[in-house]
Amino acid sequence: MPRLFDRVTIAGVGLIGGSLALAARAAGLIGEVIGLGRGAANLELARQRGIIDRYSHDPHDAARDADLLLLAVPVATMPVVARAAAPALRAGAVVSDAGSVKTAVLRDMEAVLPPGVPFVGAHPIAGTEESGAGAARADLFRGCRCILTPGPGSDATAVAKIRALWEGVGMHVVEMDAMRHDQILAWVSHLPHVLAFSAVHAVVAADPALREFAGPSFRDLTRVAASPVDMWRDILMANADQVDAVLDRFLAALDTLRQHIARRDVDHLEAFLGDARAARLAWNGPRK
Amino acid sequence: MPRLFDRVTIAGVGLIGGSLALAARAAGLIGEVIGLGRGAANLELARQRGIIDRYSHDPHDAARDADLLLLAVPVATMPVVARAAAPALRAGAVVSDAGSVKTAVLRDMEAVLPPGVPFVGAHPIAGTEESGAGAARADLFRGCRCILTPGPGSDATAVAKIRALWEGVGMHVVEMDAMRHDQILAWVSHLPHVLAFSAVHAVVAADPALREFAGPSFRDLTRVAASPVDMWRDILMANADQVDAVLDRFLAALDTLRQHIARRDVDHLEAFLGDARAARLAWNGPRK
Repeated sequence: MPRLFDRVTIAGVGLIGGSLALAARAAGLIGEVIGLGRGAANLELARQRGIIDRYSHDPHDAARDADLLLLAVPVATMPVVARAAAPALRAGAVVSDAGSVKTAVLRDMEAVLPPGVPFVGAHPIAGTEESGAGAARADLFRGCRCILTPGPGSDATAVAKIRALWEGVGMHVVEMDAMRHDQILAWVSHLPHVLAFSAVHAVVAADPALREFAGPSFRDLTRVAASPVDMWRDILMANADQVDAVLDRFLAALDTLRQHIARRDVDHLEAFLGDARAARLAWNGPRK
Repeated sequence: MPRLFDRVTIAGVGLIGGSLALAARAAGLIGEVIGLGRGAANLELARQRGIIDRYSHDPHDAARDADLLLLAVPVATMPVVARAAAPALRAGAVVSDAGSVKTAVLRDMEAVLPPGVPFVGAHPIAGTEESGAGAARADLFRGCRCILTPGPGSDATAVAKIRALWEGVGMHVVEMDAMRHDQILAWVSHLPHVLAFSAVHAVVAADPALREFAGPSFRDLTRVAASPVDMWRDILMANADQVDAVLDRFLAALDTLRQHIARRDVDHLEAFLGDARAARLAWNGPRK
């Protein structure tokens, strides 16, 4: 695989940014990697682990002469970083991201990037509740989906290079429009996080001792409530309308089930559970 | 460890009943094991795997001269089996169960068991979404909690033997009253299952293609929707009032989070997520 980018600035050297650096370097897809972030301890750890070659806390300094700026910070921080870093990039450089929301990010990038600096929205659907450079690993993306959200005016060469980058670290890349992405992610990712955060709140309010009796089902339900707060604050704010629409539909299903239980309607209850079980068993997506 | 029971009849040789037989036999706690069930294929598999010595489809036949009848069938089936099997048990025999609901089971057993046959309610909190004798494994219970729910009139010797049985397969046994058990389990087990079944329903209704994009958070949320339908139909019916009360409290927490998002109230949103994250990270229960 030929090298795609000679110098990459990764804003946010955490689970996603750090894992991409490890994986893309191992595959020979990128050359020098410069970390950009606020926390010196995390950046130093990233340097010691060989995730980055060097780092800076200053966007302009970190992005100097880079041909890829990869935004792996919380989505509300992306425009702040991009505005400050973009003028330092090499001519022909590409800006991309790894955010779980795309409509808001595309709008923000249109507002802050100088003319001639192409942006390619990307979302590698991988990760865990862990965070920081210490959690980064080269195999994080292998076998998982990555969604690109190029618009009608996107730079075709830039899109092709970002596609090659994520394919090069083992992802199955698909393209779709940003709104469709945000609707899908509201279902498959934002909803599980909202339910997890809410379940922990409710349990703690009811009786903190309940956790002593939590089995695997409760631990799985609440696992992602340990996810980074700044990241999820920004995602839920940026995708608020889609999340609200998904909650409406989820709550309608939950209410149907609740009514079957409350009415002791055993036939409808059994059918409801049976339909869900059959659908769940039919899901044969990649497991990680 | 001395032998606790010479001949054990296990009604329902599935994940829980089968795993107990494997574990208790390996520990020398029980002698002969007779399987009781409807499905010949599952019982034959259990015999081939050495989980049981022999089996019968007839409760009276399967329970003849046994000194323990372990009910590991869906909770609504328990009184049917117990009524038919109890008269065949050896004098001094104990009846116990492994159900996820205790108040309803205690009431049912009081109604169907002959005088002089002691019942000890038990709930080993372990298991997965899998089912059947093929899923049974000897280490399923190790390190997990088991709740016993003896009442004021319980036979102390019987309670001690059932405690020794579950401790002998590696469980941490605690005793509490049945209502408290049912409240706890509504939170830590029944709620996650209700949310999982509902989430699958909502996603399938919205767009079955969504599953193509499901990452780890959605797979974990919905994992237990693959659980056996008859088991969960009975649990939700038998614990309907507690499940309803827990849903009220869960929905209040979810609505609080939803309002923070809808109002773009970033400070309250961040505090809500932060509180949940801190609580979740503080949970250091045994992981399986």
